[in-house]
Amino acid sequence: MSTELDQTSRTTISRHAERGSYDRDAAYAILDEGMVAHVGFDAGNGVTVIPMTYARVGDEIVLHGAVASRWLSSFENGRPVSLCVTLLDGLVLAQSAFSHSMNYRSVVCFGDATLVTDKSKKDAAFRAFLDHLVPGRWDDTRQPDAKESDATIVLSVPIAEASIKVRSGPPKDSAKDLGLGYWTGVIPLEMTSGPPIPDPVMQDDIDTPDYVTSFDPKRK
Amino acid sequence: MSTELDQTSRTTISRHAERGSYDRDAAYAILDEGMVAHVGFDAGNGVTVIPMTYARVGDEIVLHGAVASRWLSSFENGRPVSLCVTLLDGLVLAQSAFSHSMNYRSVVCFGDATLVTDKSKKDAAFRAFLDHLVPGRWDDTRQPDAKESDATIVLSVPIAEASIKVRSGPPKDSAKDLGLGYWTGVIPLEMTSGPPIPDPVMQDDIDTPDYVTSFDPKRK
Repeated sequence: MSTELDQTSRTTISRHAERGSYDRDAAYAILDEGMVAHVGFDAGNGVTVIPMTYARVGDEIVLHGAVASRWLSSFENGRPVSLCVTLLDGLVLAQSAFSHSMNYRSVVCFGDATLVTDKSKKDAAFRAFLDHLVPGRWDDTRQPDAKESDATIVLSVPIAEASIKVRSGPPKDSAKDLGLGYWTGVIPLEMTSGPPIPDPVMQDDIDTPDYVTSFDPKRK
Repeated sequence: MSTELDQTSRTTISRHAERGSYDRDAAYAILDEGMVAHVGFDAGNGVTVIPMTYARVGDEIVLHGAVASRWLSSFENGRPVSLCVTLLDGLVLAQSAFSHSMNYRSVVCFGDATLVTDKSKKDAAFRAFLDHLVPGRWDDTRQPDAKESDATIVLSVPIAEASIKVRSGPPKDSAKDLGLGYWTGVIPLEMTSGPPIPDPVMQDDIDTPDYVTSFDPKRK
């Protein structure tokens, strides 16, 4: 049975509560499919939101950046963040402008981002960053040396105070608007991948690995 | 000639400065292609990031939500936000784990989100929300009545203190790593749309409009 996430005043869904949930497994499925997290924090001069790559390692989200990064280096003693991963599934066209919507799956997570210093945990995060995006890649690349590891900050955010919001299916017009005669329905959207583009400076006798040719952005 | 965005301490790109720019037209192109903005704010209990639909109207980004929304209603007197729109273009596989990257285009914008109360400005925002996502839809739907308009909060954020970050092209490995023998290159990613799914409760004599059949998520 799936455990529940922590429902707090910040994670309680007030609008369209029927779209909300606190199911941990459902949150993990969204986090495991997404590729970019939008991370918000206040490092002293107001709220900043930036896009970051991420991975889930167990019950934590790991993030990374350069030690030389101005704002990341300010996380040395931890810092509260809010993190959102959104998957867009479709545009919902209703009879009324008011009832137009999107189909989507999103996770919003609140927590303290703390520095990962333990070497084995940091190595596990490095593996997760690659294998989250392209499963199988970690074992087929040059892994970080000590200098690269030292130059990289890894942050961990617990997946605890979090919520999910999901909308799916057709438009939901008021009864009075049905029959107005406009086309209504859903334009499905999905992230798709194109044929891999080999690096022009790569040796030309390297076969494209299976994990690249069979890459699926939905990671099914 | 394109005007520049405001370069402040918050928008100055410190890492990978070669990826940064402050070109207004380039920012508008990203904002006009995106469908979801991640908006960060602090309404009194820490930073929160949520996904929102948006549109660009001239030099402003407009956002909307329900008057009944707990947090949106707290914006009555304005509130600073940070807003980020990210378009993902590819996964970049390099010889070293350290040099893996993503191809993307993103805009980060800082500004005060203020309530739009002027009726004609609010109507222009309503039109923009639909025509931004599905050009042509506004003129082919029932437009908001006074009650719906009153139930909707529209916020405006000036596009001024903002920056762009773009990465494109092949991996950039250190010279010492070239020839390690791993496959390197780019897996291109893009948002694509599938065949429209008609609403099951729609009258069955409605033709699918051209703006739906020809919908392009890249809005070219």
